[in-house]
Amino acid sequence: MTAYQQLESHFKRLNSLRGAAGILHWDHAVMMPPGAASARGEQLATLDLLAHQMASDPHVGDLLDRAERDTSSLDEWERANLYHMRRLYKEANAIPEELVEVKARAAVASEVCWRVARETSDFASWAPHLEEIVKIVREIAAAKGEALALSPYDALLEAFDPGMRVSTIDRIFGELSGVLPGLIQAAIDKQGSRKLLPLEGPFPIDKQRSLALALMKQIGFDFNRGRLDVSAHPFCGGGLDDIRITTKYTESDFASALMGVLHETGHAMYEFGLPEEWAWQPVGDALGMTLHESQSLLFEMQVCRSPEFLGYVAPLIQSAFNGKGPAWEGDNLYHHYTRVERGFIRIDADEVTYPAHVILRYRLERRLIDGTLSVRELPEAWSDELESLLGIRPPDHKRGCMQDIHWSDGSFGYFPVYTLGALLAAQLFEAAKATVPHLLEEVQRGNFVPLFTWLRDQVHGHGSRLSSEELTKRATGRPLGIGSWTAHIKKRYL
Amino acid sequence: MTAYQQLESHFKRLNSLRGAAGILHWDHAVMMPPGAASARGEQLATLDLLAHQMASDPHVGDLLDRAERDTSSLDEWERANLYHMRRLYKEANAIPEELVEVKARAAVASEVCWRVARETSDFASWAPHLEEIVKIVREIAAAKGEALALSPYDALLEAFDPGMRVSTIDRIFGELSGVLPGLIQAAIDKQGSRKLLPLEGPFPIDKQRSLALALMKQIGFDFNRGRLDVSAHPFCGGGLDDIRITTKYTESDFASALMGVLHETGHAMYEFGLPEEWAWQPVGDALGMTLHESQSLLFEMQVCRSPEFLGYVAPLIQSAFNGKGPAWEGDNLYHHYTRVERGFIRIDADEVTYPAHVILRYRLERRLIDGTLSVRELPEAWSDELESLLGIRPPDHKRGCMQDIHWSDGSFGYFPVYTLGALLAAQLFEAAKATVPHLLEEVQRGNFVPLFTWLRDQVHGHGSRLSSEELTKRATGRPLGIGSWTAHIKKRYL
Repeated sequence: MTAYQQLESHFKRLNSLRGAAGILHWDHAVMMPPGAASARGEQLATLDLLAHQMASDPHVGDLLDRAERDTSSLDEWERANLYHMRRLYKEANAIPEELVEVKARAAVASEVCWRVARETSDFASWAPHLEEIVKIVREIAAAKGEALALSPYDALLEAFDPGMRVSTIDRIFGELSGVLPGLIQAAIDKQGSRKLLPLEGPFPIDKQRSLALALMKQIGFDFNRGRLDVSAHPFCGGGLDDIRITTKYTESDFASALMGVLHETGHAMYEFGLPEEWAWQPVGDALGMTLHESQSLLFEMQVCRSPEFLGYVAPLIQSAFNGKGPAWEGDNLYHHYTRVERGFIRIDADEVTYPAHVILRYRLERRLIDGTLSVRELPEAWSDELESLLGIRPPDHKRGCMQDIHWSDGSFGYFPVYTLGALLAAQLFEAAKATVPHLLEEVQRGNFVPLFTWLRDQVHGHGSRLSSEELTKRATGRPLGIGSWTAHIKKRYL
Repeated sequence: MTAYQQLESHFKRLNSLRGAAGILHWDHAVMMPPGAASARGEQLATLDLLAHQMASDPHVGDLLDRAERDTSSLDEWERANLYHMRRLYKEANAIPEELVEVKARAAVASEVCWRVARETSDFASWAPHLEEIVKIVREIAAAKGEALALSPYDALLEAFDPGMRVSTIDRIFGELSGVLPGLIQAAIDKQGSRKLLPLEGPFPIDKQRSLALALMKQIGFDFNRGRLDVSAHPFCGGGLDDIRITTKYTESDFASALMGVLHETGHAMYEFGLPEEWAWQPVGDALGMTLHESQSLLFEMQVCRSPEFLGYVAPLIQSAFNGKGPAWEGDNLYHHYTRVERGFIRIDADEVTYPAHVILRYRLERRLIDGTLSVRELPEAWSDELESLLGIRPPDHKRGCMQDIHWSDGSFGYFPVYTLGALLAAQLFEAAKATVPHLLEEVQRGNFVPLFTWLRDQVHGHGSRLSSEELTKRATGRPLGIGSWTAHIKKRYL
């Protein structure tokens, strides 16, 4: 076997270890009896450790050196694969193993505290944990930055969106925060005159589930390689050929669970569309979290909240819940699904105000990492930022800086992904509509084939062969920006 | 950390890797979408390989040498733990890694063929696969035997029942096959005059499931650390603090699913009863498959097929399925659950004829391993053995030598476990009844506490601290034999 071939077989093992962990995470959220929590923690920690050891194995370094010496026999995909292997090897070796373990332990302790303290907005109890987390993450960012020749925050971004830089985000978020307050105000003014007819429940859960499954099937979700289940916090997980999405039903409302399923289906369709012949290899993986989020948001925000999709789905909803009258028509559903409101909670936010929540977190976490903001000052800084972006101040920490799990979990550098993904979604969908004739008319007829054919061709099927920047330019003709998104918001809301 | 402490932390990781594999196996059987089969195969193979590497790591050998040099600071449990660590290390190093991989691949190919060929009794198609498996297993048995200073077949037994030897089995099975034909004939003669009232269905599956769950709860199954689900082949799996049992329901019959759940509950109660403070360590593990099977069979055969248990459960069954009249009384249930019949299929066999199926397989697999029987001669030898033991010849291979997955899977040395477990179950239960007053009367009242208190004290709570032989002698006053079992059969059937 050549050095490159040995690397392929090594990374196949590494990826199958990650797939195993994916199923254990799913099981943890969906199936596991509560008493197994600590044992499962050990299992996942062991898999993480072994994966880290495999990724950072010095033998891999030798093989990479040898394979890189002569790449003339490799094709374009193999060269891209080799590039990612080197990137992953560098990343794995950038952070001392002890630091990874220290962070994991601190994150568990912090999360346990956060779950309880959040209920009573008890910031004082949680603050020492967050201080510890920030301290460790700063060390990690410094070490990784040094190893990868990046600034500390850029080094953190690298874990979620390889190639994304602070300079890009600053430019994009700068432009966005300039136009956002005006867009939000205009959208709220516009909808002020609009009548919203209430949808009366209850909505039996088995009916909600059947409707969700029928829609997933129509969309093209491959149930031979995936499942839909229930968990407290919906997600898309699992592993290769085994995509598992979850949702959370409530009898009093069908709309949020249904849209949640469609969002996760967008994630799933990306996974299903990755290049089969490169399954198991780094180049066959999804290209970072921004692109992943762009696929769920393209489907949810651009497609499924459109009047065309809601026109298609209205009769199905009516028949699932025996709904009659104008409240159940596509128009009223569309008004429900495009309601704009200034609120405190990110995960409840609509697509117009959502970026404000993200920009706030991005600004604050950058300052936490560069040391210009202390944890003690966080609540006040949070309130000030929210006021400047949305004109409101949270009444308590629960609806302020204690609402998200991300920081408690040590995930710094993740938040930008949500809004970068939304912008990319708008830009990609604009390009899709320009290329594929009658795209939304087909959706209105329940035909999703043209949409996903374009996405496979332009996005999914490339895996990680192209950089995010290249892929964006090839598919849309220009680098990522806010133009398509603002145009979309104006068209839909103004 | 001392060498011993380092070993504890190493084996904790190894055990958590095994726990992870346990959940993935469960998921494979219960949840996994069919298209993920090949990816799951890779994941499990990777976990197996990593577990094997961890178990055979030369560094473990060094640590063992150091820890064994001075054990004066270790207590009795730690010394037993060290003993098992050495045993596992020796076993892991006894078989060349390539051979393990070759066997795994051959077993997959064989199973794929077997599943199809069995349907049409197509022995000729499957025979080359079985030949390949036998060849590999013989090599493994030879290598392992040499490394452990055991005969090849003893070396195979070691994987399932450490310490069990051919000499013991030969003695026990020799005695058993002497008395078995007489017992079977007498039992069949006796029941000839007995009236069996049919139980009329259908039995709705949700009712069957509720009844099973209610019984498990009453028995003491800890749902905070376990689950009941559905799979094609019922089993008890999962991992530490996460015991997962499965069953298979059919609307036309409740009796076999219910008894299946009780059997697996017996397995589960053993796992729940293992010493908590030695969880993760080899000494805290179950003591081989004979003891495991003894716990499921003690519960199923000795307890749950007793008139006392069936008297307790009859009203619950009646109310679950709205059953009225004499067919639903404990007496008739007891007759259903203690029916003796000579049949071709092992897994459908009653407790009286079951040992005949096991002895047959034991005799044949010993000859396959020592080379005195070829695969080509197997069908004829099977028919001859069955005729000599039960007086019947199978009409086809499907009901003959192609009925079990074990050999196709490379599991030689496993079959004896079923009958050794049944004998041990009878011997342990006899001892329990002699020590605990009114044991079966308590069961008849739905009180399982005295039974499981005795079992925890005498069996479960010891983990692997004692050898199987020591444990048997301590709990029952004598080594394993056929006396209690034949007494039990005579009492119940004659």
